[in-house]
Amino acid sequence: MSKPLILVSNDDGITSPGIRTLVEIAKTIGDVVVVAPDSPQSGMGHAITIGNTLRLDKSIAFDDLGIEAYECSGTPADCVKLAKHHVLKDRKPDLVVSGINHGSNSSISVLYSGTMSAAIEAAIESLPAIGFSLCDYGHEADFSHTREYVEKIIRQALEHKIPENTALNVNFPKKSTEPIKGVKVCRQAHAKWQEEFDERLDPNNRRYFWMTGSFVNFDKGEDTDEWALVNNYVSVVPCQFDLTAHYAIARLNNEWSL
Amino acid sequence: MSKPLILVSNDDGITSPGIRTLVEIAKTIGDVVVVAPDSPQSGMGHAITIGNTLRLDKSIAFDDLGIEAYECSGTPADCVKLAKHHVLKDRKPDLVVSGINHGSNSSISVLYSGTMSAAIEAAIESLPAIGFSLCDYGHEADFSHTREYVEKIIRQALEHKIPENTALNVNFPKKSTEPIKGVKVCRQAHAKWQEEFDERLDPNNRRYFWMTGSFVNFDKGEDTDEWALVNNYVSVVPCQFDLTAHYAIARLNNEWSL
Repeated sequence: MSKPLILVSNDDGITSPGIRTLVEIAKTIGDVVVVAPDSPQSGMGHAITIGNTLRLDKSIAFDDLGIEAYECSGTPADCVKLAKHHVLKDRKPDLVVSGINHGSNSSISVLYSGTMSAAIEAAIESLPAIGFSLCDYGHEADFSHTREYVEKIIRQALEHKIPENTALNVNFPKKSTEPIKGVKVCRQAHAKWQEEFDERLDPNNRRYFWMTGSFVNFDKGEDTDEWALVNNYVSVVPCQFDLTAHYAIARLNNEWSL
Repeated sequence: MSKPLILVSNDDGITSPGIRTLVEIAKTIGDVVVVAPDSPQSGMGHAITIGNTLRLDKSIAFDDLGIEAYECSGTPADCVKLAKHHVLKDRKPDLVVSGINHGSNSSISVLYSGTMSAAIEAAIESLPAIGFSLCDYGHEADFSHTREYVEKIIRQALEHKIPENTALNVNFPKKSTEPIKGVKVCRQAHAKWQEEFDERLDPNNRRYFWMTGSFVNFDKGEDTDEWALVNNYVSVVPCQFDLTAHYAIARLNNEWSL
């Protein structure tokens, strides 16, 4: 039987330790092609490159593993579009994986996430897709405890298929002395980032800001991704790209006069 | 009674004709503050500025209307965050409106839309929000037929409130000889962009790409935004930021071995 074809992308850029971990794992399961940004694209959400040109070049980043790789000047969503319609024009990936992100993409962070935008873009293209993220922003983050779970989840996705029109958002607790307790299928917690802006003056006395903030979880549910992560489980949230709040349609029709 | 406070943003930039139309309409209803990007940000999706500084300066763009305005170096989502946590720190907007976008944000385009990311960011901040878009990409687009509907929808939103945790995605058909038939509350059509990449060589003989594409609607439903727009109705889709595909959780729990 031929090996499955696995497309790998990310948002931290093609030379980040997280994507290397993911490529190493994917390589034990299938044939791997990498199409990833040539520079960090964190927080890019579902941005795409409009009104500007895109570069796509062969990359040597994974030559040591004998893996075909391309680096792209665009966003994670651009990478998946270029992979689908150009690099893999005559090959259909059996799975698209994105990450492993240096930093959490749980709860509301999924909206800002470049990692998940690559996975969701693949889902829009009817390709099974998973985004993997580690709750550790450090460039030197320890991914060792994620390996067995990444492999298990990829194998399950290939065997059982991912529900149509969804992409999985998988987050791992930061490496600690406690072992991971297992995997929980969750819903996205209702939470947000409480921003603060650190105001400074540049050397020319012009004002600028750094965005800082803290994460606030309003959700007491024990079925959320936040609950799972705090309790040392791997969280898996199936995400959809139909944003319609179907429950609100009747109310708008009944209460508003349009 | 004091007038409602309306925050206006967009993604085409603070000098685009679309935001001027929206500001003119909002001004007839309430007190207006503008916080908008200092340059076009189309296709930015829900991108935010991480690892980079932000500028925010007083803008003269709406001095002729006597309206307080600020231009920001960041994305539409950044603009709303800066508005909420800095510009309007001691004032709470009664409504956030974004647009009017030069180009459609119906169906799957909502994911790539900077216009809608401003509205959705406001909804995350528990502020009622609406994104307005016109199915005409031209800089010289004719917005005249949208005015009465924009005003009506803003007044209804202030009177009846927008359902919690949602933002409205409002799209207008391109100006034509036929009058608009009315307003339809819709769901997001299942559709996608079919990309093609136009490959060229730069003056140094290095390869680059332009992303082009055509819109493909797979959805035959007559309750979709695409149906409404093609039939010359204004489409209104309530959008949520909970991406969980709740229906898929049971299947993952039952069929997968995690």
